[in-house]
Amino acid sequence: MNLADVRAAARGLDGIAHRPPVMTSRTLGAGVFLKCESFQRTGAFKFRGAYNFLSSLGEEERARGVCAISSGNHAQAVALSARELGIRAAILMPEDAPPAKLAAVDGYGAEIETYDRYSMPQVQAGREFAERRQMTFVPAYDDPRIAAGAGTAALELLEDAGELDLLLAPVGGGGLMAGCATVIKALHPSARVIGVEASGVVKRSLEAGERIQIPVPRHIADGQMLTQPGEWTFEVMRELVDDVVLCTDDEILAAMAFLFDRLKLVTEPSGAIATAALLAGHVRPEGARVGVLVSGGNVGLERFLDLMRR
Amino acid sequence: MNLADVRAAARGLDGIAHRPPVMTSRTLGAGVFLKCESFQRTGAFKFRGAYNFLSSLGEEERARGVCAISSGNHAQAVALSARELGIRAAILMPEDAPPAKLAAVDGYGAEIETYDRYSMPQVQAGREFAERRQMTFVPAYDDPRIAAGAGTAALELLEDAGELDLLLAPVGGGGLMAGCATVIKALHPSARVIGVEASGVVKRSLEAGERIQIPVPRHIADGQMLTQPGEWTFEVMRELVDDVVLCTDDEILAAMAFLFDRLKLVTEPSGAIATAALLAGHVRPEGARVGVLVSGGNVGLERFLDLMRR
Repeated sequence: MNLADVRAAARGLDGIAHRPPVMTSRTLGAGVFLKCESFQRTGAFKFRGAYNFLSSLGEEERARGVCAISSGNHAQAVALSARELGIRAAILMPEDAPPAKLAAVDGYGAEIETYDRYSMPQVQAGREFAERRQMTFVPAYDDPRIAAGAGTAALELLEDAGELDLLLAPVGGGGLMAGCATVIKALHPSARVIGVEASGVVKRSLEAGERIQIPVPRHIADGQMLTQPGEWTFEVMRELVDDVVLCTDDEILAAMAFLFDRLKLVTEPSGAIATAALLAGHVRPEGARVGVLVSGGNVGLERFLDLMRR
Repeated sequence: MNLADVRAAARGLDGIAHRPPVMTSRTLGAGVFLKCESFQRTGAFKFRGAYNFLSSLGEEERARGVCAISSGNHAQAVALSARELGIRAAILMPEDAPPAKLAAVDGYGAEIETYDRYSMPQVQAGREFAERRQMTFVPAYDDPRIAAGAGTAALELLEDAGELDLLLAPVGGGGLMAGCATVIKALHPSARVIGVEASGVVKRSLEAGERIQIPVPRHIADGQMLTQPGEWTFEVMRELVDDVVLCTDDEILAAMAFLFDRLKLVTEPSGAIATAALLAGHVRPEGARVGVLVSGGNVGLERFLDLMRR
């Protein structure tokens, strides 16, 4: 997967995906540029990768329909992409997923099946689901087409903000990071790329030189609940990511409040975590031109109120 | 004040004001375009008019410094405009103004004085303040330069959304409405312009054919606390505004929640009221191309949490 793949994905997404604005804040610094994927269709960057993946399928794969497993943003992204492309979709979602998310996926016309997420690991549940349904499985992150789609966000950020010295992006499975790092390093090789996470699984994996496995983490960033980085994305991150920093729940909440009050942005915890790394001082740009991926805004009003009352 | 004045204001604001994005929502309808002035500098459209007014001042007026009376957004707009232009500013604010707004004005370097808005009419308080300070008074709405500045929001909306059949904008003193209606009627004479308010003072004034006076209203839209429309703006509105509709506090709150959840937009009550008119069915566009002014986002996190817990 290289810059040409991301450019091809961008051409496919033109007129389909939104092109969310790049925003600035004098409080964060004159050289800080926030790419607001909270305004992407389905409310998160995930639509870019899912649509790019589905567009790449051949006739036979489309005819079988697509399936995915997700409790959140990937589910909505696959459901909407499938509807846009006229492909049948079935999504396996945890039976205790928030009703609003189930309703959103249902609203995009996808079939929903639920499972007990405490009785079976997600990877296993997804594999069994795809086999049983005989549908084309859409991975959430560990795939070059997913990453190339996600990388189009970085491409737009560079077009709108100009050259960057540093990119900060949330990191979990690694799809967004693999795509964005590929773009940044291809266009501005001297720029640094730093991932931000809540659990430390990516940082520890990079330090160990191999993918470690952790128990399901207990933090508020539900978009970064991974227990292990992706296999393919990990190899890309080993090559292209300069550093990974961690943020606490309190730092994420402070960033969500800051983005609400000062930038009038609604963000979910993983959407605010890259900004949190700046605000908490884990990354000190010191005059550098910094791109920040605000990856999503699907927090939901009720959960936002609960989080802010902590 | 005419289209040429608005175009001149737009040239003066170029590179100074932000150009907030126009957003769409399939839930609201394919032809609905939200001009998101919540992302304007100072968090509301008011910056446009204040900066245009201050730019128009001569040497002597600038040297005296400027003063204003405002519950919030106009205060911030004057404070920041003055700082940008190197002019001293003093602002008279109600002592019960939202703390976020008081803090912001202070942050822009303006001097703040407070008063009890329930004990003295705003017009009287402002007149006394300006006389005592011997500074150039910056009106909040009842002035062609203020309205011409505000009208640049409609100019940008038309440039980005294309032709409109209908414009919905909050109406209070009438500065935003006078500027926007002037632009819409000049460029698309057949388009309808509808104001949205919480108190009914503008609607009743237009029906009466003269400016009525009401007690200080007690609704949640603190950006629309006017007891009487402006004198000059009222004449413009009589000529150009087709209708005014009212929204209740509950309808405004529902719109704020909708904009938060679905569009990931932070709005203050008056910023959400034009959207509320659509959502509550007070205006039924039925296929028309509708521009909606989302006029500001300075609600402040604490007040937002309080409002949403009602």
